[in-house]
Amino acid sequence: MDHDLDLSADPAALTAALVDIASVSGEEKPLADAIERALSAAPHLTVHRDGNTLIARTSLGRAERVVLAGHIDTVPHAGNFPSSLNAERTRLMGCGTSDMKSGVAVALRLAAGVREPNRDVTYVFYDCEEVAAERNGLGRIARNSPDLLEGDFAILMEPSGGDVEGGCQGTLRVAVRAFGTRAHTARSWMGDNAIHKAGAILDVLRDYLPREPAVDGLRYHEGLNAVSVTGGVATNVVPDACEVQVNYRFAPDLSPEEAIAHVQSLFAGFETEVLDVAPGARPGLDAPVAAAFAAAVGGVPRPKLGWTDVARFAELGMPAVNYGPGISEIAHTPGEYVELAAIAACESRLRAWLET
Amino acid sequence: MDHDLDLSADPAALTAALVDIASVSGEEKPLADAIERALSAAPHLTVHRDGNTLIARTSLGRAERVVLAGHIDTVPHAGNFPSSLNAERTRLMGCGTSDMKSGVAVALRLAAGVREPNRDVTYVFYDCEEVAAERNGLGRIARNSPDLLEGDFAILMEPSGGDVEGGCQGTLRVAVRAFGTRAHTARSWMGDNAIHKAGAILDVLRDYLPREPAVDGLRYHEGLNAVSVTGGVATNVVPDACEVQVNYRFAPDLSPEEAIAHVQSLFAGFETEVLDVAPGARPGLDAPVAAAFAAAVGGVPRPKLGWTDVARFAELGMPAVNYGPGISEIAHTPGEYVELAAIAACESRLRAWLET
Repeated sequence: MDHDLDLSADPAALTAALVDIASVSGEEKPLADAIERALSAAPHLTVHRDGNTLIARTSLGRAERVVLAGHIDTVPHAGNFPSSLNAERTRLMGCGTSDMKSGVAVALRLAAGVREPNRDVTYVFYDCEEVAAERNGLGRIARNSPDLLEGDFAILMEPSGGDVEGGCQGTLRVAVRAFGTRAHTARSWMGDNAIHKAGAILDVLRDYLPREPAVDGLRYHEGLNAVSVTGGVATNVVPDACEVQVNYRFAPDLSPEEAIAHVQSLFAGFETEVLDVAPGARPGLDAPVAAAFAAAVGGVPRPKLGWTDVARFAELGMPAVNYGPGISEIAHTPGEYVELAAIAACESRLRAWLET
Repeated sequence: MDHDLDLSADPAALTAALVDIASVSGEEKPLADAIERALSAAPHLTVHRDGNTLIARTSLGRAERVVLAGHIDTVPHAGNFPSSLNAERTRLMGCGTSDMKSGVAVALRLAAGVREPNRDVTYVFYDCEEVAAERNGLGRIARNSPDLLEGDFAILMEPSGGDVEGGCQGTLRVAVRAFGTRAHTARSWMGDNAIHKAGAILDVLRDYLPREPAVDGLRYHEGLNAVSVTGGVATNVVPDACEVQVNYRFAPDLSPEEAIAHVQSLFAGFETEVLDVAPGARPGLDAPVAAAFAAAVGGVPRPKLGWTDVARFAELGMPAVNYGPGISEIAHTPGEYVELAAIAACESRLRAWLET
């Protein structure tokens, strides 16, 4: 079934229409098709498609170009599909309302409605953000057609409660392993208990004082946590191996290499293996274009502690921020919702910034 | 196919014949049938059968009665079936050679060949020792027909390298649990990491000094070990629970209740759950009948550190020891074997004790 989107509908109605076209990661085609049809009707936009990712650009020869990007996929439904309004008709409830079809609705309305923006704009609607990083549509475009993402500044419409959230922290996961020697527990002194030795790994974690550095004027808050521990052979065997997986969330003043070296130094004496790492992104609010944006939309910029795709723009050398009407704390929960007033406020601030 | 056992064959040949009738736990019927036929041919024995367990008794009205018991099942084969001799023809190799068909062969030859022992003898050949305790044939007889097991002293023909091993240590397994509060690792200070808290459980284990008490003249050696640790929710979540399973091997001067209370006191402040417990058995070598046995067979009695079915005799109020030709350290390994000379030595010592 083909779905038609009315980009002239009010932003709450458009959000509901977007939510009601199911687009769990990997199944975005019906929604991508609908967005492509709607954007292709706007003569001031040039539209590119790559899989289920759409890119629509103005080409007015402006001095600056900004990128507005939002992912169109959601996590799996959790009894919260399709959308519904609360009794007071102030909130739209359902899967993807906050994360982040309300942001997508704002971007679509700006794309269709702001025909002569004061800055050239590249709108990006991409797939597979909620799944493994290698499937991420924005990453695919950055690899295949980085020129399509060029610009002076990027705004990722992740849920940020209507405030500017600058940059993001990096994330590193490392396996830290202790080894021993097996023995029957009836003669345990013949062995060397690897789980007991892993106590020294937990000592490091218990004693660790996380940094809270200021980066480009925003104060971040790191964390170093065991996220899993496994060990044991059988109920009567002294175990010879124990693994603690440690997740280090690091402020964007550290590179991934520096973060890895830091964790390895903390666990010197143990085997370590880097399982995955994603760089952070500096908030970049000292760049004039970013500072001008923050001033235009108002509020006090906050640091983004979670990892988001702003890091992909940072890797392309572009300052980027998170700015969207959704609420990050309730994303991925069955009770996800968005305030209708927040959608309208986000749109009007961005529209003012692009039109005046 | 019916198998016939020749109890007049030399003990090494009889051991090989027993090994070559497969009897993995639960599949002992062919071997039990063969043993029943062989014992029923001896007019001086009264034979009882309960499932795949056989009990053969002399009834000479002697002042003392001793029990010689051995299990007829084995662990699953591991490429070590049927039996074979080593090149020097000094060792019989294969599944069950040490644990414990060599002991069973000795007991069968004594049953058939010692027609007028100086003590009445109850021979027990039982099933399902190598599997869950509730299936154990000796335990079944103790529940159903305890009178058949009555006696002044019991010898369990477990592999003990030809030395008397007295009593056994008890074993207790307890789950010790730490709890916390989940949070996203990007905001880990909102949570309380249960794996980090479990560090205090490992502290107790690392600092623990095991007791080495002397009990009835034998020195035991306890052990307190983590045998497994599990915790973790997802790679980006501060975990709210962590469980360490602790195995306490306790000397037979402690009751199961005392062992449980000891472990609970060590981990006060954590949730504990008793997963399983088996009592130890005092060596009982201070009983005159046991001391006389130890003196007759010679050597220096040792404490048995692992748990064995002697504890079942202890629960019936009988002193009991482990005494068999097998080697416990290689039991359950693909390379299991028994020294042929050890089988003959074990038989001749027991025969001398029963005949003189």
